Amino acid sequence: MEAARKEYAELRARGLSLDLTRGKPSPEQLDLAGDLLSLPGGGDVKAADGTDTRNYGGLLGLPELREIFAGPLQVPAGQLLALGNASLTLMHDNVVQALLSVVPGGERRWADEPRVRFVCPVPGYDRHFGVCERYGIDMVPVPLTGEGPDMDVVEELVASDPTIKGMWCVPKYSNPTGEVYSDETVRRLAAMRTAAPDFRLFWDNAYAVHHLTGERVEILSILDACAEAGNPDRAFVFGSTSKITTAGSGVAFVGSSPANVAWMKERLLKQTIGPDKVNQLRHVRFFRDTDGVTAHMERHRALLEPRFAAVYEVLESELGPLGIAEWTRPKGGYFVSLDVPDGCASEVVRLAKEAGIALTPAGAAFPYGKDPRDREIRLAPSFPSVEEVREAMRAVAVCVRLAAAEQEAAGTAG
Amino acid sequence: MEAARKEYAELRARGLSLDLTRGKPSPEQLDLAGDLLSLPGGGDVKAADGTDTRNYGGLLGLPELREIFAGPLQVPAGQLLALGNASLTLMHDNVVQALLSVVPGGERRWADEPRVRFVCPVPGYDRHFGVCERYGIDMVPVPLTGEGPDMDVVEELVASDPTIKGMWCVPKYSNPTGEVYSDETVRRLAAMRTAAPDFRLFWDNAYAVHHLTGERVEILSILDACAEAGNPDRAFVFGSTSKITTAGSGVAFVGSSPANVAWMKERLLKQTIGPDKVNQLRHVRFFRDTDGVTAHMERHRALLEPRFAAVYEVLESELGPLGIAEWTRPKGGYFVSLDVPDGCASEVVRLAKEAGIALTPAGAAFPYGKDPRDREIRLAPSFPSVEEVREAMRAVAVCVRLAAAEQEAAGTAG
Repeated sequence: MEAARKEYAELRARGLSLDLTRGKPSPEQLDLAGDLLSLPGGGDVKAADGTDTRNYGGLLGLPELREIFAGPLQVPAGQLLALGNASLTLMHDNVVQALLSVVPGGERRWADEPRVRFVCPVPGYDRHFGVCERYGIDMVPVPLTGEGPDMDVVEELVASDPTIKGMWCVPKYSNPTGEVYSDETVRRLAAMRTAAPDFRLFWDNAYAVHHLTGERVEILSILDACAEAGNPDRAFVFGSTSKITTAGSGVAFVGSSPANVAWMKERLLKQTIGPDKVNQLRHVRFFRDTDGVTAHMERHRALLEPRFAAVYEVLESELGPLGIAEWTRPKGGYFVSLDVPDGCASEVVRLAKEAGIALTPAGAAFPYGKDPRDREIRLAPSFPSVEEVREAMRAVAVCVRLAAAEQEAAGTAG
Repeated sequence: MEAARKEYAELRARGLSLDLTRGKPSPEQLDLAGDLLSLPGGGDVKAADGTDTRNYGGLLGLPELREIFAGPLQVPAGQLLALGNASLTLMHDNVVQALLSVVPGGERRWADEPRVRFVCPVPGYDRHFGVCERYGIDMVPVPLTGEGPDMDVVEELVASDPTIKGMWCVPKYSNPTGEVYSDETVRRLAAMRTAAPDFRLFWDNAYAVHHLTGERVEILSILDACAEAGNPDRAFVFGSTSKITTAGSGVAFVGSSPANVAWMKERLLKQTIGPDKVNQLRHVRFFRDTDGVTAHMERHRALLEPRFAAVYEVLESELGPLGIAEWTRPKGGYFVSLDVPDGCASEVVRLAKEAGIALTPAGAAFPYGKDPRDREIRLAPSFPSVEEVREAMRAVAVCVRLAAAEQEAAGTAG
C-alpha cells in the first residue's frame, strides 16, 4: 500500500496530459487518405453512369461505391445504400423511423407500443445505448461469451417477450472487447423465434475490415443467414469509412433485405434529395476497387499494431505478475478492454484523471453507464503516439495497483 | 381551335425532349464552384481554432463557416449550426424530433397529440408538404397575397386552433411565386397569438442570397422580430449552399433561439459525432468571407437572368396578347409561376408531356398535390440553356393555347 501510494504520488508530480478515451484515428492514419483532400479535382465529376455528381439526385448513393463496399459489408450492392457521413446517424434514423412508421412485418409503430425494449450485449458501444436512452427504449443487458452474446439467454428473451423489438450487435472486433461472433452465434441470431414480428437486429459491422493481425477474420453474412432461416427482413447492416478514410467526412452505409430497403427508401424520399455524391465519387476515385480498400487497411494496421503491442507489453510487465487484472487481445478494431478487480474501475479512472490521464468513464460500455461489477475500462490506444501509449499505460498500471491495494486494505480493515 | 390543334400537331412532330421540372442549377452554374473540387488540398486541414477537420467532433459545425453565413441567414453565428448536406433533412429531422421529444414551451410530444396541423401558404414547396404528409400532419392551405400569406386568415387560424403546431414559410423569393414577405407580415407572424404554446415557424430562407435583379431584396430578421415580440423561440431558420456551390454536396444550416438550439443539440448528441467538417473547411477556403458569397451569387445571376428573360419574352409575345395567362416576374429564386385558365393546368402539363416537354405536375405546389383551381404551373428555367428555355417556352405556349381553346369549345358546346 505504501509503495503504491508513493509511486502514484510520483506519477501525479509528473503532470502528464494524455488521452486514451475515444477510438479516434491518429493524424498519421488520416494522412493515409491525404489524396482525398484534392479529389475529385475539376476534370471529371461524372459518375460511371454519366450522372453529374455535383447536382441533385441519386437517392441511394453512387452504385460504383456501393459495389466497392458490398463485399466487405456482406450486402449485395443493390441492397446497400451509401448515404451520409456517419453510420450512427443511419442507426439513429432507423430507430426513429421504426418509432414513427410501421416496420415491414410489424402491426403498429413502435411509438404506439406501451413499451419497447432492446437486447444489449455487454460490454458494448455507449452510443448505441445513448440512442435507446433518448427515446425511452429499455435496455436488457446480455453478457458476451467470447463467441458473441450468450445465445441461450438471448433466445429465451426474444421468444418470450414481444416488447423486445431490437438488438444491438457489433459482430466483428466488437467495441470494446474485440469479440467476434461465431458462425453458430450468427445462425442462431438469424433463426431464433421472436415474439415480436417486427424484431430487428441492428448489425453494426463498424470494424469489418479493421484487422489488427495477419489473420483477416471473417464472419458469416447475417443477411444470408437470415434469408436461409426464413427471416429475410430481420437485420439492418451498418458500416462506414469513418475509420478507413476520414472520421466525420467519410461515407456511411446501410444495407438490408429488399423489403427493408423499400421501407427506408420511403423515408429517404421525404428526408433528402440525395446524399453527397461528390464525396462518394471522391472515395471511388481514391479506392478504385475493393482491393484498394484492403491495401489501405494494411497501412492502417501498420500504424495501429505497434500501439496495441505497447498496451499489451506494459500491461504484461506491470500487472501480469500481480494477477489483479485481465485484458483482451483483439484481432481487430480499436479497443482493449481491461478488467480490474470488481469495484475498482471507477477508482482507477478517477486516479488516472487526477494524474492527467483521460480514460473513458467507468461503466460507459454498459447501458445507463452502469457496470454492475465496476470493473471494465475501455482503452483506446489509436490516437496517441506509441511512446505516449506506453507512458499512459504505465500510468494506468500505477493507478490499478493503487486502487487494488486500497481495496485490499479496506477489506482487511473492515 | 383548328389553328391551335394544327400548331400542336406540328410541335409534337418535332419530337422535342426538354425539361422545366425542377430547380436544378445548370452545369455552368456548378462550374462556378469548380475550385471546391480540389479543396482543401493536402496542405492545411486545420480549422481556425486548430481543430483537425479530418477527425471526429465539432457537433455544431465550423465556427468560421457559421460566421460567413450568419449575415445572409440573419442568425447570430453562435445560434447558427452548420450540419449536413441538405436543409430539407434538417427540416424533416426537426419535425420528427418535435413528434418524439417535447419542444421548448410545449406540454407533450406532437406524437402524443390527437391531431397536428400545419399552416401551408400556397402555392408552396412540394417537399415541405411531403414531410407533413408522411407523418400524418394535416395541412391547412392559406393563400399568398403578394406580401406573404394572408395574415388575417393566419392569425385567426393559429389563435383559435391549438392543433396548429407549425407553419411553413419561404419568406424571400418563395418557391414557386417569388413572393417576398413584407416587414408587416414578418412582424405579424412574430407577434401573433397562438393557441399552441409550442407553435413553430419553419422559416426556409432557401433563397436568401439568390437575387435575379440588381435589387438585393432584404427582409426583416424573423429571429429579431420574434424576440422583440416576446416569442423568442417561435422560429427555426433554415438555409443551405445547395444552390450556391453544389447541389447535394453543399452545407446546410439551421438557426434559432438559444433554447431551441439547446433542444436541437440534445438530439444531435445522440444522432451524430459531428458533421462533415472537411466539406465545411472546403467552403470556408472557397468563400473566405460573406463578401465572397455575394460576389459568387452575382456570377450565378449572370447565368440565370437571361434564362428568366427568355421565359418572360416568350410568354409576352406568345400569350400576352391573348389574355389567357398570367405569370410572376420574381426578383430572385428559381421559378416562374404560370397561371393558366382555371381547370387547364393538368391538361397543359399533359399536352406538354406528349410533346416531349417535362413540366412539374400540375398541383405539385399545393398540399396533397391538389390545386383547387387547377391553374398553377411551376416553371424552372435554370437548368436548360437559354435557347432550350426559349424553345420549351414556345412549346408551353402552344399547349396553353390549345388547352384554353379546348376548354372554350367545350364550354360553347355544353
